[in-house]
This record gives sequence, structure tokens and C-alpha cells, in this order.
Amino acid sequence: MTETAATIPPPAIVLVRPQLGENIGKAARAMLNFGLTDLRLVAPRDGWPNPAAGPAASGADVVLERARVFDTVADAVADCAHIYATTVRKRGVTKPVVTPEVAARQIHAEPGGSAILFGPERSGLETDDVAVARTIVTVPINAEFGSLNLAQAVILVAYEWSKHVALASPPEVELDPPAPQGELDGMIAQLDDMLEAANFFFPPARVPATKRTLRTLLTKPGWTSQEVRTLRGVLSALAGKKSPRG
Amino acid sequence: MTETAATIPPPAIVLVRPQLGENIGKAARAMLNFGLTDLRLVAPRDGWPNPAAGPAASGADVVLERARVFDTVADAVADCAHIYATTVRKRGVTKPVVTPEVAARQIHAEPGGSAILFGPERSGLETDDVAVARTIVTVPINAEFGSLNLAQAVILVAYEWSKHVALASPPEVELDPPAPQGELDGMIAQLDDMLEAANFFFPPARVPATKRTLRTLLTKPGWTSQEVRTLRGVLSALAGKKSPRG
Repeated sequence: MTETAATIPPPAIVLVRPQLGENIGKAARAMLNFGLTDLRLVAPRDGWPNPAAGPAASGADVVLERARVFDTVADAVADCAHIYATTVRKRGVTKPVVTPEVAARQIHAEPGGSAILFGPERSGLETDDVAVARTIVTVPINAEFGSLNLAQAVILVAYEWSKHVALASPPEVELDPPAPQGELDGMIAQLDDMLEAANFFFPPARVPATKRTLRTLLTKPGWTSQEVRTLRGVLSALAGKKSPRG
Repeated sequence: MTETAATIPPPAIVLVRPQLGENIGKAARAMLNFGLTDLRLVAPRDGWPNPAAGPAASGADVVLERARVFDTVADAVADCAHIYATTVRKRGVTKPVVTPEVAARQIHAEPGGSAILFGPERSGLETDDVAVARTIVTVPINAEFGSLNLAQAVILVAYEWSKHVALASPPEVELDPPAPQGELDGMIAQLDDMLEAANFFFPPARVPATKRTLRTLLTKPGWTSQEVRTLRGVLSALAGKKSPRG
């Protein structure tokens, strides 16, 4: 719609393990009100399509028709450079926490596509889902009554995003965007295999936490595709294989 | 709650001829999420109290219990100095039209209580209702798909209002600072030695540039001391030494 929108695509809204079709429909409606159409569903509980979604979308059928379904969060965001995870409350995570307002500003300023993760209705995102993201988005809310539902969280984020659509000011410095998530995942998998072989992961009970720590570490930089390629060359060299530098 | 709130009361949310009790409950929930509690109902279609409101309020019962019912809009806002009317689309009225963002700023700046009118679910406010207001509030919305429901309109207005209140202060996460440069240098030296041994640095003419590229890569994250320690453990593991994790 604007110059900015042409170069920086609107963010994808990723519903992770959503439970009710009705809420998927409401989220679609919330999105389209503010010009978002890229809906992605990760392992929706009741499958997809879901007959309860359409009526709740109140006419936002185009969003539902284009919705894509993925098995994992990693698959859903593989083409995105900036991953945001929405959480209701603070968690013990060492990632920056921003408001929807700040997130919207960032999404409009950063080259490369963004994805915003929303957790299941009751439980919210799990720690492993949050680990995929570089940034946490939290809506500042009444400390004594925090009860935002899924569609409400989506609408607040979409609303803030829409505020900047008309502004269309290009980013001042042309920085390469972070590599798509899939490339980062490939590098992390390579390192995991090497560490596995080196018996790094011990004791077994701590393996998931250790892997999460490493993922957080390696997500933090926002490395570009070129940087990820260089690092994969480093890893290959350390593994004694011929480096695939190019 | 804050000095501002003490002198300038939070705005009243006035639902004019609301139809469904469920939507009254949802509006109450939306309000309380952002610290608003003054709910006023003008001629609710199905009377008051309404048994469908409670379950939809998801715990925001205090708002429903304190809700007051009035026969007319004029009665409902008789004690308010600033009346805002929400409409989805601009109308041919000769009143200022503002966004929720601007309205929130005005409400916090103007002495005297404010009220915000929301119309019935299907039809919205009538011309006579709008005539009571001095200012129109319109949410900027997708021109091709404007479909905000009552609770969504309430939540956007309440959310914007809450931004200026101390209770909604953005979550602060204390992130650890980047490690001192000496620690980073130690890690880079360790990696350099390993890559040297793996014959990564080749041809000789490119060694300085390659080392600079790696340093840039590894400086970019701003890793903390703990993260640098973890990565040195990773490197030690890959080098086949006992990991110095601690």
C-alpha cells in the first residue's frame, strides 16, 4: 500500500497451537481491520480448515483462505528475519522486552520480514517457542487484572503496526537483515551435532535447558545470511571438514 | 493510583443501548485490563443486570457490579466535562475527529471528567447521541474492511488511555551488559588458535581480513560474561578438552 510496505512486508501473525476455531476467526478479523493478511497456524488443535473460524471472522475470509498451516514454530517462521514472541507476563528470559508500540516501530524500521508469535489460549507460549524469538512483546496491563484474550492481543499489535503504515519513511542505514530463521536453524543444528559428538550435552536432564541457552545466544546477534555462512564455514573447519566458504 | 489519576479521573465508558449482555461483559473485561472501572449503560436492550454479562467478563466482576444504568445519554454524562463519541467512519459532522491516541492525550491533559460514548453493536451511535459530544473518536482502520466490534473499540480506547498512566508502565527487564572486551578477546583468541590448528586461515594474504570478519561477527551480539563463558565451554568441547563450564 505504501512504499514502506513494499520493501518491508507486513508482519506474519503466527498462532501457535491455537485451540478454538472461533478464536482463529476473531484473530483474522482483528488482523484485517488493520491491514494484516499473513496468518500462519502452527499445529491448530482441531485441524484446519475449522468450520468455526469463518463465522467468527465476520467477513475476513480472505485471511482465513490464505492461512498456512505448519507443524512447528521453526517451520512457520523459517522465512522471517525478525521473530517476536508475545507473552502476558515477564519471564526469566534474557531477551529484550518491548511494548507493542516499540515492536511496531522496530518492524517498520528493520529490513527483512517479521513474524509475531501468539501462544495457545489458556497457556500462552512455551519456553521453547519463546526461545525462537529475539524479542519479547508484552502489553503493559493492569497488574491486578491481566486477562487479554488471543484476538485482543492480536488486535493491539496489529493496531500499533497500522499506525506507521502511512508514514512510509525508509530506513536510513541500509543494513543487511538477519538471516531467515531457517538458515539460523541450520547452523544451530550443525553445532548441535558437533557438540553431541563431543559429549558436550551432559547430564541428560540438563540437555533441553543447555540447548535453549545456546539457541538464545545464537539468536541474539541477528546475524545476516553472509555471517551465518561464514560461521558454518568455521564450524565445518572445526569439524575437520572442508569449509564450504564461497 | 497516580497524581494524574487523582486530579483527572479515568474516563467513563458509556455503552449506549447495548444489545447483548455478553458484549457488556467483554467491554468490562477490556476496561479492567487497562485500569478503567467506570462503566455506564444507557437503556440496555435486555435490562440490567444481565446474566450473560458475568461469564463474558472473565473476572472483571467489579466493573459490572459498579455499573450504573441511565435512561438517556444526557443523564449518563451529566457529571462529565468532556464527551467523546466513537464512530467507525467519519460522518458529516462539524466536530473535531481524533484518533484514540489523541483522545487519550487530551483526556489526560484536560481537567474535568471525560466520558466516551460507544453505540449499539449493529448500528453505532445515532446523530442525536453524537450531538452530545464535543469530539469524535475514530479508529483509523482498513478502508476495505472496517469491522471492529464493541469490545474491540473499547479495548483500543482503554489501551491508549492506559499508556499515560503509571500503572501501565512498560515491563523492565534487567539485561546483563556485554562482557568486558578482555573476556571477548580471550574467546576470540581461543577460537583463532583452534582455527589455526584446523587450517582454516588460508590463503595467508587473506588472514587479516578473515580474522577481522570473525571479530566483527563475534562482537555484534554484545554477549554477556555468562554467555562468553558458555561459548568458551562450547569451544573447549569442540576442541576435545574438558569443558570449563561452571
